[in-house]
Amino acid sequence: MNESMIAEQQPQSNPGVQALDFSAWMQQRLARTEDALSRWVGVNAPAGLGEAMRYAVLDGGKRLRPLLVWAASEAVGGQEAATLRAGCAVELIHAYSLVHDDMPCMDNDVLRRGKPTVHVQFGEASALLAGDALQALAFELLLPENEGVPCSMQARLCRLLGAAAGSQGMAGGQAIDLASVGKQLSESQLREMHRLKTGALLQGSVLMGAACNAQTDARALQALTEYGQALGVAFQVVDDILDVVADSATLGKTAGKDAANDKPTYVSLLGLERARGHAEELRQQAHAALAGSGLPDTQALAALADMVVQRTH
Amino acid sequence: MNESMIAEQQPQSNPGVQALDFSAWMQQRLARTEDALSRWVGVNAPAGLGEAMRYAVLDGGKRLRPLLVWAASEAVGGQEAATLRAGCAVELIHAYSLVHDDMPCMDNDVLRRGKPTVHVQFGEASALLAGDALQALAFELLLPENEGVPCSMQARLCRLLGAAAGSQGMAGGQAIDLASVGKQLSESQLREMHRLKTGALLQGSVLMGAACNAQTDARALQALTEYGQALGVAFQVVDDILDVVADSATLGKTAGKDAANDKPTYVSLLGLERARGHAEELRQQAHAALAGSGLPDTQALAALADMVVQRTH
Repeated sequence: MNESMIAEQQPQSNPGVQALDFSAWMQQRLARTEDALSRWVGVNAPAGLGEAMRYAVLDGGKRLRPLLVWAASEAVGGQEAATLRAGCAVELIHAYSLVHDDMPCMDNDVLRRGKPTVHVQFGEASALLAGDALQALAFELLLPENEGVPCSMQARLCRLLGAAAGSQGMAGGQAIDLASVGKQLSESQLREMHRLKTGALLQGSVLMGAACNAQTDARALQALTEYGQALGVAFQVVDDILDVVADSATLGKTAGKDAANDKPTYVSLLGLERARGHAEELRQQAHAALAGSGLPDTQALAALADMVVQRTH
Repeated sequence: MNESMIAEQQPQSNPGVQALDFSAWMQQRLARTEDALSRWVGVNAPAGLGEAMRYAVLDGGKRLRPLLVWAASEAVGGQEAATLRAGCAVELIHAYSLVHDDMPCMDNDVLRRGKPTVHVQFGEASALLAGDALQALAFELLLPENEGVPCSMQARLCRLLGAAAGSQGMAGGQAIDLASVGKQLSESQLREMHRLKTGALLQGSVLMGAACNAQTDARALQALTEYGQALGVAFQVVDDILDVVADSATLGKTAGKDAANDKPTYVSLLGLERARGHAEELRQQAHAALAGSGLPDTQALAALADMVVQRTH
């Protein structure tokens, strides 16, 4: 496909759709998400566990996944209560994966979001349990009894979350990652690993947003699937670039650890410049998918794709 | 309540109900459960991860939780497809909790079901991921798309599983357990810890079985709740007794580790004889609850309560 053509198919050019103030849009969704997380995470848990759960989730993180849920849901006219819960649920899965990933038996990392990691702060056993409890809570959040979310939507959201988080999603990708340390991976192997490890939950966020309206049509679903795929890969390519070019203070986590751990990355495979070009290509693919979705307003999704590629941490 | 009266209220005395061959009943349900677990666990996971997941789940375990699901579901006339899946789901939660609990940062145990524990066999990182993936799979199993399980039942089963597994259930109990090592607990504190740590999932099994018929009436639900509570405590009391009186070969796990870890138990609190008496009391409470349930045939549930108290491993 012609790239200059794609660039002109920006969804904000749709007639009758008001231009989005993305920064204001984002701040509002972030505020609602933070408020809900603060009300829902670790509140009725035994003291030490609740504290570790809240430490792992609150006051930090870009909340990219909830933002993707919001943007996708709004693009399809999704139900609000389901959207808020789905956004928080994917964020809890993300947060638990970081807690476990940072543990000594995995990446053994001490710094996350500019703070000591959970096991450094609370001990390994508490980190393990807090992660476990966060995963259970993620599913629980999707199953409200009195908020008017139809049970078919609840079941569908749980199904998408389970698929994104489990052995054929995030956990599967982490296992491939673990097995690949010190090995030479081909680009297709690397892509498969990341499709699961980070891509599945990012794409899952988009699909869960889309599932907040049970009537979302097949064309839109297909487009959002393609958007989510491109965005998932783009996220990882940029992550690999940032691990090389940024410092720990900017990242809020330990920089340079991929090379230190001898992990294959898009940068080690493609080199820095080709990796940057690939990220831009993927951004354009994401835009093109939105342009072909038939959805009237996908500005927030488009802006999130830009944000993922242009971020500095 | 008069205990000799309770003993006479055995549900098998109901007229018109055929006496149960419990051993045959159990073997049939175990075979179906094993077959399903073997088909569902770790099958499409990346190689190393799938292997660790299957090792953690297959070829071992008493399958008490699936049996409770079967017995409760059959007592209320529950749907079969939902029952099979609910039984496997609770077993996966149980299995993942054992994998994580055995890890060096928790109980640091090397023997489970007569085999090396998962982290000894596959390494700590794989054990961590296998546990995480098993939890996600537990929820996924409850959400079949084409088996005629109504979405309201799927959502209810997921809700019960999440509550039983999470911070206000099993994970919460483990956190209290962790915080209590080396401390003197009162009987009520010990009871609260175990109500969550092991009781929540056992009771959850019973309630999930009951949820396999959406029309289960309030009286039966209340009775099954009381049965599940009594059985949950009885299980732990007997566990504490066996930790003292049995050897590792019989248990298939390390014996005497509670005392070695300076953990409070029913035996350390009540002494061996009073603990035994308490277990028998709880068995009778479980029977009494069944007798008052209004359900026509609760023989399998009654036999499971007996089995829990009379087991030697």
